Amino acid sequence: MIIDIHGHYTTAPKALEAWRNRQIAGIQDPSAAPKVSDLVMTDDDIRETIESNQLAQMRLRGSDVTIFSPRASFMAHHIGDFQVSSTWAAICNELVSRVCRLFPGHFVPAAMLPQSPGVAPETCIPELIKCVDQYGAVAINLNPDPSGGHWTSPPLTDRHWYPIYERMVEYDIPAMIHVSTSCNPCFHTTGAHYINADTTAFMQLIQGDLFKDFPTLRFVIPHGGGAAPYHWGRYRGLAQELKKPKLAEHLLGNVFFDTCVYHQPGIDLLTRVVPVANILFASEMIGAVRGVDPETGHNYDDTKRYIEASTQLTAAQKQQIYEDNARRVYPRLDAALKAKGK
Amino acid sequence: MIIDIHGHYTTAPKALEAWRNRQIAGIQDPSAAPKVSDLVMTDDDIRETIESNQLAQMRLRGSDVTIFSPRASFMAHHIGDFQVSSTWAAICNELVSRVCRLFPGHFVPAAMLPQSPGVAPETCIPELIKCVDQYGAVAINLNPDPSGGHWTSPPLTDRHWYPIYERMVEYDIPAMIHVSTSCNPCFHTTGAHYINADTTAFMQLIQGDLFKDFPTLRFVIPHGGGAAPYHWGRYRGLAQELKKPKLAEHLLGNVFFDTCVYHQPGIDLLTRVVPVANILFASEMIGAVRGVDPETGHNYDDTKRYIEASTQLTAAQKQQIYEDNARRVYPRLDAALKAKGK
Repeated sequence: MIIDIHGHYTTAPKALEAWRNRQIAGIQDPSAAPKVSDLVMTDDDIRETIESNQLAQMRLRGSDVTIFSPRASFMAHHIGDFQVSSTWAAICNELVSRVCRLFPGHFVPAAMLPQSPGVAPETCIPELIKCVDQYGAVAINLNPDPSGGHWTSPPLTDRHWYPIYERMVEYDIPAMIHVSTSCNPCFHTTGAHYINADTTAFMQLIQGDLFKDFPTLRFVIPHGGGAAPYHWGRYRGLAQELKKPKLAEHLLGNVFFDTCVYHQPGIDLLTRVVPVANILFASEMIGAVRGVDPETGHNYDDTKRYIEASTQLTAAQKQQIYEDNARRVYPRLDAALKAKGK
Repeated sequence: MIIDIHGHYTTAPKALEAWRNRQIAGIQDPSAAPKVSDLVMTDDDIRETIESNQLAQMRLRGSDVTIFSPRASFMAHHIGDFQVSSTWAAICNELVSRVCRLFPGHFVPAAMLPQSPGVAPETCIPELIKCVDQYGAVAINLNPDPSGGHWTSPPLTDRHWYPIYERMVEYDIPAMIHVSTSCNPCFHTTGAHYINADTTAFMQLIQGDLFKDFPTLRFVIPHGGGAAPYHWGRYRGLAQELKKPKLAEHLLGNVFFDTCVYHQPGIDLLTRVVPVANILFASEMIGAVRGVDPETGHNYDDTKRYIEASTQLTAAQKQQIYEDNARRVYPRLDAALKAKGK
């Protein structure tokens, strides 16, 4: 089985974006604010967007199950206050849960949180609980920068975040560290902010000792870990200067990287540098880079081709990356699959 | 000849830091402010710090000439106002110029600028002119984020920066895009802020069309280009989505990467992905990562070993990386070397 741990509902019916635009307009002009019940999408609407997009690609490329969460760039936690984020997160999570119920063999949900800049993370707990208990979410997406590129929250190792971590540990669910749209003109959302956030999070974890407090806490750093694997020597050296244990001991029991690296040399570096046990298959399709690479004739984000073409990985190691690691890092996914006899 | 294009005076006599601390104290309490003339360092003081550090390492590792600039993390443009930055930049540039005069066969200067958050970049021009005309600076370091991790300046493609670029073109000098200390607790200075800035700058250049306005402008993105080479497929794909020309045509006549990547797999990726003509040898020793890698028994930042050990590069390509590219990208360095018969 091939499990893609990083998929977002980037192709939702246009009604979703239209509703969100009305919600945003309503922040300035409450008379323009829509009701939740104004948003109507039929099961057929949803089916169509999945069957012609993500599911079509999964069949074509040969992956079986996707961990599916609301569109990352649309989380936009910087917009409005907690109430705005809370309503929006509830809508997006419910929508993803409908996708997963419509295609139970192919999609398993992960939740976005109703984060809001300057608001205590514990306010996200009710949505988290609902998503796990009612929707069967097997993970959360945690935004280390709800300000959208101004980085006004404390580092991930700060006690600020502990209420979320306590629930993650209780439920035994991992978090993917994933920012949203940048509203800082310096940072292109998917070309700078996403990758910088991955790198930033990894370095914060090196600096801290978070996993002493939460030995079973697990983070997935997407987009191949940002710059971390390419600069692995720098990070090993910085950990050494900071008198931390070796990375393997300090972080690699708790920190995992996905394979959203959109060319063969990048994947080859990742698999050469990072232990196979810490690499999880993912594509983030249909996402930031939707085109066809003229150098290969295939989609940039068809990451399975790079894993397949790897001459460094054995068949057993590919199996770990495709399936075994995901079942270990996402135990609720494993349980859900086993409940279906998979 | 082996030219290291990325060295900072990280080992300056302690009197420099003590003076800076007094200058910083003087921002709040003008009675504590030191005079420039209070800072006294003899030629012997300077000689000692270079001979026992950078020059000793150059001899040991086998590099010949270093492009030398003030310590990057000490630029700290976010501290004080333009006058504070101006006095500090003048001191640091003069000090580096003394090093280069004391060791004319080994060090060639590059200038820091007296940038200050919210202050127009043209205010840096007099210092730039002085450094080129009087000190023989062959390049500048340009900080894309003088706020120190808050990213309050416009992107590098904005006309905001054009007065600097006009002078660079006039003098035919490149800029290394190099941030300084992060005062944002989210970003570790050398582990996150430096690498993020490299990635951010590269993406800004993809988004814009700066080199249409300045066809001969040249930037060096340090630390191996941040995350860019590891995510080369992502960047090729994003350029494609943005309807930009291919990276080779869009940027690679103007953008170069150094080899400050502190492990063999990283260097191997860089040289596999980026054309050899765009790679310049550098170590940034004695800098962010000063330790010995237990996996190799050698310093992490002894980057010449990785180039030497590369099985992908021919001898002619190594010669390009070690010397030829630097002479082409830094024509004033080439002229200075030729004037010495080198």
